[in-house]
Amino acid sequence: MNAATDPAINWTDFGDEQNLAEAIFAELARQTGDGIGITRECYSPQEDAALRIFSAVAEAYGLQIDSDAAGNLIVRASDDDGSAPAHYIGSHADSVPQGGNYDGAAGIVAGLLCLIRLGKSGRKLTTPVRVLMLRGEESAFYGRANIGSRALFGMIDGKDLAAKSRGVGRTLAEALEASGIDTNPIREARTLFDVSKAASYLELHIEQGPVMTDRKLPAAVVSGIRGNLRHRRVMCRGEAGHSGTIPRWLRKDAVFAFADLIGRLDEHWRVLLERGLDLVVTTGIVGTDPDEHALSRIPGEVMFSFEVRSQSHDTLEGFYELFRSECRAVGQQRGVVFEFDDRVYTEPARMDGKIIEMLSTAAGDCGLDPQTLPSGAGHDAAVFANAGIPSGMVFVRNANGSHNPHEAMDVADLIKGTDVLYRTVTASN
Amino acid sequence: MNAATDPAINWTDFGDEQNLAEAIFAELARQTGDGIGITRECYSPQEDAALRIFSAVAEAYGLQIDSDAAGNLIVRASDDDGSAPAHYIGSHADSVPQGGNYDGAAGIVAGLLCLIRLGKSGRKLTTPVRVLMLRGEESAFYGRANIGSRALFGMIDGKDLAAKSRGVGRTLAEALEASGIDTNPIREARTLFDVSKAASYLELHIEQGPVMTDRKLPAAVVSGIRGNLRHRRVMCRGEAGHSGTIPRWLRKDAVFAFADLIGRLDEHWRVLLERGLDLVVTTGIVGTDPDEHALSRIPGEVMFSFEVRSQSHDTLEGFYELFRSECRAVGQQRGVVFEFDDRVYTEPARMDGKIIEMLSTAAGDCGLDPQTLPSGAGHDAAVFANAGIPSGMVFVRNANGSHNPHEAMDVADLIKGTDVLYRTVTASN
Repeated sequence: MNAATDPAINWTDFGDEQNLAEAIFAELARQTGDGIGITRECYSPQEDAALRIFSAVAEAYGLQIDSDAAGNLIVRASDDDGSAPAHYIGSHADSVPQGGNYDGAAGIVAGLLCLIRLGKSGRKLTTPVRVLMLRGEESAFYGRANIGSRALFGMIDGKDLAAKSRGVGRTLAEALEASGIDTNPIREARTLFDVSKAASYLELHIEQGPVMTDRKLPAAVVSGIRGNLRHRRVMCRGEAGHSGTIPRWLRKDAVFAFADLIGRLDEHWRVLLERGLDLVVTTGIVGTDPDEHALSRIPGEVMFSFEVRSQSHDTLEGFYELFRSECRAVGQQRGVVFEFDDRVYTEPARMDGKIIEMLSTAAGDCGLDPQTLPSGAGHDAAVFANAGIPSGMVFVRNANGSHNPHEAMDVADLIKGTDVLYRTVTASN
Repeated sequence: MNAATDPAINWTDFGDEQNLAEAIFAELARQTGDGIGITRECYSPQEDAALRIFSAVAEAYGLQIDSDAAGNLIVRASDDDGSAPAHYIGSHADSVPQGGNYDGAAGIVAGLLCLIRLGKSGRKLTTPVRVLMLRGEESAFYGRANIGSRALFGMIDGKDLAAKSRGVGRTLAEALEASGIDTNPIREARTLFDVSKAASYLELHIEQGPVMTDRKLPAAVVSGIRGNLRHRRVMCRGEAGHSGTIPRWLRKDAVFAFADLIGRLDEHWRVLLERGLDLVVTTGIVGTDPDEHALSRIPGEVMFSFEVRSQSHDTLEGFYELFRSECRAVGQQRGVVFEFDDRVYTEPARMDGKIIEMLSTAAGDCGLDPQTLPSGAGHDAAVFANAGIPSGMVFVRNANGSHNPHEAMDVADLIKGTDVLYRTVTASN
């Protein structure tokens, strides 16, 4: 059976950690490659295949594997009976369609390497380390991110369970049941993870942006996970007219008003960054109405999306207030009005201050520049952090972004990130 | 037959000029209304109907009517044998589909009123006045503006003649032939108008913008007809990316770059207006790519149209140079590139300085504020001016723009504009 782990692979036979990690990624690519990139749909045979590979590695090193109520796997040392509070090192086994091999898997590999290194070291830890191999972090198939982690905290609802894979396939409930999961506790929004058993939640993940490549950082500590404030659709309405016959002072040009607004927001953004705030601003969608627009018509309206992201709730709300205030000012000065659809808010997740400090100290001890940077994308760590578990993240440098086949992580960088995690969980433990 | 002028109308029986003008417009609306607005397709029964109404009025006052090689009609006094150079007062009989009643027709009515007033005055003019009732000024049906006037100067080509009405109907050549016009001289680009017989070309037209309503000017002299420089499609290409993970300094956001460009151009425009230049700038079409854009995606590209209009060739070229230069500057600063399709240039038309002076003096003598303003839209006067005939225009106030059923000209304002024309053609003549 192709999906089974190659029985000829002896996972204890790769010499150093880098060789072992590379062998794991190679086997992942062999079994879950789709011809273009990597596809590991959550609660599907491909995610199962990835989890079987990780499990085979764990078993080869004498580690124990349990399953939780959402089908996530927990790996522990054989002398850890699972009863004491632990440091959980987690990440996800799934991927987007035609994605890359490292998004998620890198964090699981790092966790397994820590457990393997701990086993070899003979250390006895007061607070044991467990690896949480999560399912369904990506929203690409069911429109809901962090399915495996949210299910543990009663955060998957009936609408999520009824969602179909990519809108046309089986439902999430059917997929869970096919994986042998009882959906009733999830549907009833029960808490299925004992928060008191988690001393911390730590996650290593590839960076999905270009900052670390730009700054030449192999690994770095995450300061927080950005939340966002969004409008899918803002309308700027002015007045259409003949482009040749209406002079500047009588125009209510919606596009010039939009440009003015963006110019003002860009300047506020620049100034706020200088003050050290965490902020990104994006209008990914902009357009005049194709049914009406013309080369020689003053545009009477333009539609645009608006998104602001920050690690800080106050920065989000503060910039949003600036946005609305500049809309009013531009409206008054240019004779246009702005109309807004529903505002959608996603809370930022704070990484635990003490854990950031521990990770940063560990990074420094590993000879790394102890810089922190925010995570713009969401992660399971946000779910654990918002559930009250002290959480932290380590990013590993990765070129070309993620969610595409061109992810480019150097396994040597992954080992450096693993070192940071290892030093953190073994420090004064 | 419905299209025939109501024989019960006695055109000499309306008392003053305002009543007569209102009766003409009423009959035009009755015969060429389309249920929503006015439709007088060029070289069609509706344009013919309008010309028949004008001709009936002219005949009622003893005026003579000739047809030229493009099917335009020339009205002259009975004591004018057509041989001497004349002041031509012209405008067009056609309209856009579902347009208004005054665009074009107002100028013909004004010309007829001048001839009627001259007849009643018993004046003998050295330079006679003739009214040129032109066909096909609007581009709405065949995609080519000024068909009736351009045909007189060899400016209609085979491609124009092969164009179909609204892209689907009969060809322009078929329409001309159905109107009894020999298309061979037009196709051969012969000059069919004796420029030496035109002392001037004067045109009264409703303003198609809001300036005169705003400035409370019933009638005003046109300073020139704006030309334009256009790109139908400019692409601004930056780099797409995850909106959450790429910080400001690493972004190549095409929409922010576009907004920056428009902000710079708007400021140049403002400053150039303060220096007294004639200029309007429009980007009627703007859009990110619907196949790619998303709320959380930094837009990698945005497409926009660009149009600048001015009475001055130098201003057009100067502003265009600024545009390209700012594209380069924004490109350098923001890491984007601008790609341009073919540049399309339409030459401005200068109104004759001496005629502007005469019209302005006449306007002052009529108690009007002698302001001049540019025409942003094209007119037949541009064709005559560029053919070397000293040309001038008078605008009459009109609310709600043109090319729609809501044109709102007060006939009292039309009479004021007619007064200006009348004083001009009778001054020292």
